[in-house]
Amino acid sequence: MATSSLAPPEVPMELHAGNRDRLLTALRAHLSATASPPRGIALLQGGEEQTRHCTDHLELFRQESYFAYLFGVREPGFYGAIDIASGQSILFAPRLPPDYAVWMGEIKPLPYFKDRYKVDLVFYVDEIVQVLQDRFSQHGKPVLFLLYGKSTDSGNYSKPASFEGIEKFDTDLGTLHPILTECRVIKSEMELGLIQYANDVSSEAHIEVMRQAKPGMKEYQLESIFLHHSYRYGACRHCSYTCICATGENSSILHYGHTAAPNDRTLNDGDMALMDMGAEYNFYGSDITCSYPINGKFNSNQATVYNVSTCEKVLFFLYVN
Amino acid sequence: MATSSLAPPEVPMELHAGNRDRLLTALRAHLSATASPPRGIALLQGGEEQTRHCTDHLELFRQESYFAYLFGVREPGFYGAIDIASGQSILFAPRLPPDYAVWMGEIKPLPYFKDRYKVDLVFYVDEIVQVLQDRFSQHGKPVLFLLYGKSTDSGNYSKPASFEGIEKFDTDLGTLHPILTECRVIKSEMELGLIQYANDVSSEAHIEVMRQAKPGMKEYQLESIFLHHSYRYGACRHCSYTCICATGENSSILHYGHTAAPNDRTLNDGDMALMDMGAEYNFYGSDITCSYPINGKFNSNQATVYNVSTCEKVLFFLYVN
Repeated sequence: MATSSLAPPEVPMELHAGNRDRLLTALRAHLSATASPPRGIALLQGGEEQTRHCTDHLELFRQESYFAYLFGVREPGFYGAIDIASGQSILFAPRLPPDYAVWMGEIKPLPYFKDRYKVDLVFYVDEIVQVLQDRFSQHGKPVLFLLYGKSTDSGNYSKPASFEGIEKFDTDLGTLHPILTECRVIKSEMELGLIQYANDVSSEAHIEVMRQAKPGMKEYQLESIFLHHSYRYGACRHCSYTCICATGENSSILHYGHTAAPNDRTLNDGDMALMDMGAEYNFYGSDITCSYPINGKFNSNQATVYNVSTCEKVLFFLYVN
Repeated sequence: MATSSLAPPEVPMELHAGNRDRLLTALRAHLSATASPPRGIALLQGGEEQTRHCTDHLELFRQESYFAYLFGVREPGFYGAIDIASGQSILFAPRLPPDYAVWMGEIKPLPYFKDRYKVDLVFYVDEIVQVLQDRFSQHGKPVLFLLYGKSTDSGNYSKPASFEGIEKFDTDLGTLHPILTECRVIKSEMELGLIQYANDVSSEAHIEVMRQAKPGMKEYQLESIFLHHSYRYGACRHCSYTCICATGENSSILHYGHTAAPNDRTLNDGDMALMDMGAEYNFYGSDITCSYPINGKFNSNQATVYNVSTCEKVLFFLYVN
């Protein structure tokens, strides 16, 4: 029976404060280099909860990644701001109706979020215009730096923050996205720690899949073992991507496993498996692929290909180092 | 160790054909009663695949429920039509780019979908205007009955089908939604069979959770056991709703378990559990709640409340019957 020696680590909010500091440093350097005033507000809108089409089925919410990077906020409906001059961080929380408590749980007061997410100030979303005008208008209308830019992976554009009354501010759509994207490339020690944990959990879960896999099972049963190990022992509720549990000829499809190719093949004696699965912890993800024979024994052809591939990896490693 | 005697049943496509027949009967009766021409096309748009915000992370696709009810199609990007006069059913499949095969899997030819989903005709989505004009224009512009109406659960409106060139048709937004919604209320024997299966899987998974639950565990570990049993043994990749694994005072929150209240409490000796979880199979869902003491023994207060509640249920049952 599966067990684990891992314990889900506490997530220090200093990690996200560090991310904000890196953004501030980069933004200030950019404004200085372009002889722009060293002022303004970086304003991001967190993700919104979504229903499945018109129904009341709420999809399990997972925060938008740029917003999560800067604020670590798990809940939907927030905005976050960073004042470039002072470095102050501000969260705007949704004002929830009283019956929320019955349906969805305790309505947390603003100090709860200030304490939990270690920001300088917390207000309600419906106060956003007033707060930004009152606190940051000493140099005229504050400029809002909004997140808008193309994801080169998907070709999609990130949606800049919007709220009622935004026309009362000057907005800049071009500055924040490239700078914040670049900040996310180099990871801090704290971030590396969480990525290592996500990798440790995922490695354990892969081993558990490998232990249990045998001919006659379905590919989706391997997916289920991975998901379960990652969540039960690793507290990873999300994965970095849909599990790719490919066996036989399915291993030639890069993103196998989605709804139109749903990990539904029966494992045969003699199959090679290609398992590409990674758990996610606090928005930091793992991406691990491994390949092995389902029956536990390489045949000679499989061993040859596997060894050639391993040799190529070693040669590549020697070449790039 | 958990096992199961259940086997995921084949889904007969006659189930969805039967659903289309019920819609046809109801639509024809409505048109007859309102002295309208007994013609037109009921046209529905299936769900689209979504990325997580601007990224290339594809959310696991789950078909829109009205579309699934009529056509049973699992894949994204389809349209479905039913010709009211002839009763013919038509699927329109997305035309996929050649590199889809490398990334996402084999590009299925149109006859594959005709055979799999047991419809009369299959074309590509980009042929929709031409097909509807060519085949159904003998009485002038065919009327398209589109799905538009309010979900009284969520307050959201279903999105009517739209496609390039729809302005070449007359459209009716008021007829289809109430009639199709009413059709979905009364379930056929085949539908009941799948609902029973979803209930059987969910019951087994609840029992497995009950067997493994003990003080010191986290609520989310119970969720993970339920999800795993439902998927591994029941082939249920989706649940009807986010698992509610509430213990202690969390049991008083109706929709506990979502991201802002994420099944993260530690189970204590002496806690009552309220487990509200249901798996889904081929778009048919289960919804089962049960309550028991985490340590396996009712204390006297818990037993009193439990027995009063059970007596009330019995009295209510006797009253309504």
